[in-house]
Formats: sequence, structure tokens, C-alpha cells
Amino acid sequence: MKRFSRLPQHIGIIPDGNRRWALRKGLKEQDGYESGLQPGLELYELCLELGIKELTFYGFTVDNTKRPSVQIRAFQKACVDAVEYLASKDTDLLVVGNTQSRFFPKALLSYTERTRFGSGLIKVNFLANYGWNWDLNYSVQNGVISSSGNIIDGIASSDISRIDLIIRWGGGRRLSGFLPIQSVYADFYVVDEMWPDYSIEQVYKALEWYQDQDITLGG
Amino acid sequence: MKRFSRLPQHIGIIPDGNRRWALRKGLKEQDGYESGLQPGLELYELCLELGIKELTFYGFTVDNTKRPSVQIRAFQKACVDAVEYLASKDTDLLVVGNTQSRFFPKALLSYTERTRFGSGLIKVNFLANYGWNWDLNYSVQNGVISSSGNIIDGIASSDISRIDLIIRWGGGRRLSGFLPIQSVYADFYVVDEMWPDYSIEQVYKALEWYQDQDITLGG
Repeated sequence: MKRFSRLPQHIGIIPDGNRRWALRKGLKEQDGYESGLQPGLELYELCLELGIKELTFYGFTVDNTKRPSVQIRAFQKACVDAVEYLASKDTDLLVVGNTQSRFFPKALLSYTERTRFGSGLIKVNFLANYGWNWDLNYSVQNGVISSSGNIIDGIASSDISRIDLIIRWGGGRRLSGFLPIQSVYADFYVVDEMWPDYSIEQVYKALEWYQDQDITLGG
Repeated sequence: MKRFSRLPQHIGIIPDGNRRWALRKGLKEQDGYESGLQPGLELYELCLELGIKELTFYGFTVDNTKRPSVQIRAFQKACVDAVEYLASKDTDLLVVGNTQSRFFPKALLSYTERTRFGSGLIKVNFLANYGWNWDLNYSVQNGVISSSGNIIDGIASSDISRIDLIIRWGGGRRLSGFLPIQSVYADFYVVDEMWPDYSIEQVYKALEWYQDQDITLGG
């Protein structure tokens, strides 16, 4: 296994490009999601080996649920399968998303409190039916402003820590609403390949780049 | 002047690399800021010519004020000079930042309500002593939650619109706390050169890249 002089504690993953990958293969758009499952499992195993402390996957968003229903069912299924796999391994697992919507998969309801599976070993957060606006307004909408008076402490994703490195597949150079609070100081690395074309070398390149960045937290 | 098939309505500018540029020139770190003034003025003129509707400059942040005071004085002066220049041109000008701190330049207090100078023509926002946490907590800290019940409407920067394209100079691939709400869907372009080495071709390349991006707003 490769060695790095400095590793991120928390990596965010934006696994984009499933639909474009499917179209290029002559498949239908919705058929790309299933092929996004195996990369996620391989990436989880790699992060565990490397000793990464926390990993967050951008599953699907409230914005995504405006798509055709055949696509929605496909990415919902891929997310449920991914979470159930992770729950069969060593993870401190948490699913974050708007559960008060018909788009939130019922099979994921039992994962919305952080739960240790196996020996824990790595925090894994999985965003399902996540919305940045929903996240930020969580405490206000529920009539509770946190006692600290800081809305940051009351966001729906408050159990997800600051992110050091975001890796986005599929060539896009944007956050697309991914955890705006946790991402304020994150370094952002883009992989041009589509997510189903994941390879371990792509992550190694991201980590090689990251180890040379000067971390200032805005200072 | 170059033509583009699609232009961003609102461009955010992160003018990073002034200190590294100064050190490479054999100057002191604080001497880099003054050389960051002229690029900003040229970029303003270019955006005006192109018909860009809104332009936001990341002047300095609350995080930046942890630096040595000789640097603080230097970037404060550069920001005041930039804003006063912009006020001598055609701009709908707004300075956003925490005015209740000794680090906010007094000379900028008169620009914290949007004011039309000359014929207006372009909205220009300038962040001075800006903090992302301060921005998001503005309504809560002032004891007013906006009547909409959406904290987004009550942020300190609520008069700054959604950003389409962020261009960052100096090679860093991170937002460093830049307007997290307005940046959720923004495309992010990185210029490797330091900000004092600004050239119009760098912006043209960013705009050429941007015109080929597929705008989905997260959908």
C-alpha cells in the first residue's frame, strides 16, 4: 500500500457521472447507478486500510428527486444497497437526509442515528435525500435554535465533522450543494473519469496532491 | 473582444497569492497586496465590457485578521483603495463584512448599503472583514429570524445573489469560507498564477471553460 506524508482525516466523495457512463456504454441512464455500487465498496475498503477517520458519500439529494421516476428508483436502490453493505462491515454508520419526504428510502430509516457495526473503525456518513437548504434550516424549522445561539450547531448534519478533502468524479468542478458548512475549508480534487470507472490510482493521485497542500483553515 | 456562447451572470473572485508573489519577487509578504489592486481594476473593466451583471471580490476575512498586523494594515489599505476606485466608476456597489469589529476599515462604513455610483451598470460586491460563520448567524445574533422562517433569507450577505462562476487565483482548490450559500451550485475555476500576475487571458480561459459546463443547479 502507498504511504503518504499527510492524510486527510475526513474525505467527502461526490460520485458523479453514472448516467453519462451508462449512455456511453449504450445503456439507459438509470442503469448507471448499479455500477456505482462496487466503486463505493472498494473506496470504503481503501480508506479503512489507509486509516482515514471519516468518510462521507453524497448519495442523492432533494434536487435529484426532480428526475424521472425510473432514475429515482434506481439511485434509491443503489443507496440502500450501499448502506446495507456498509452495515455488514466495520463502520460507525450514519445516514443523513430529509426523512419526512416520500423520497427518503424507508429501508434507511433505521440508520439515521449513528450506529456502530462490527468494530466500528471508521465513521461513514451517507447522504440520502439530502438538501443543503433543509440541512441549514433544520433547527429553525423544528422550532429549536441551539442554546449556543450558533445555527451551525443546530444543522441536520451537525454530527458530520469538517471535511478536509472532497474528491469529485465525473469532471464537474462544483459542490452541487454538498454539505456547505463542512466544506468551507475543504480542498477540492476533481477526477475526470466517471464514477463507475473508479480506480484506486485516482484516489492515490488525489491523496498525493492533498499531501502537498498548505492547510490554513482560511488564516 | 472575445465572444462567448454563454456567460455567467455573477462571477466570484478569490484573488489569492499576493504574499507568495511578493516573496518570489524578494519583497516582504505585506508588499504583495498593493500589486493586487491593478488586477482588480482591470478585471472590473473587463466584466463591464463583457456585460457581466454582478461581480464579487473576496477582499479579506475575519480568519485573515489573525495575521501579523503589518500584513493586516496592508490588505486593509488595498481594500479601501479598491472600493474607493470602484466608487469613482459606474457601479452598484456594496461592501459586506462584520462592521462591529476593529478590523473593519472605517473608510468602508459608508459603502455597507448598496449605492449606485455613476450609471451603475454592474453590481459589484466587496467582502471586507467577512466571515462565513458571521454571515450565516447574522439574523440569529441580531435576534431576528426572518419572517420566512428560512435562515438563508436573513444572512448578512442576502443582497448578494447566487454565484455562477468562481475564479480563484494562486492555485488553491478550495473556497476558504467564501460565501457558502451563494456558492452551493457555482462552477469553480482555478488559475495557477498568483493574483498580481493577473492577465486577461486567464479570465478568457475561465469563461471558455464555463461556457461548456452543463448547468443543472443540482438537478
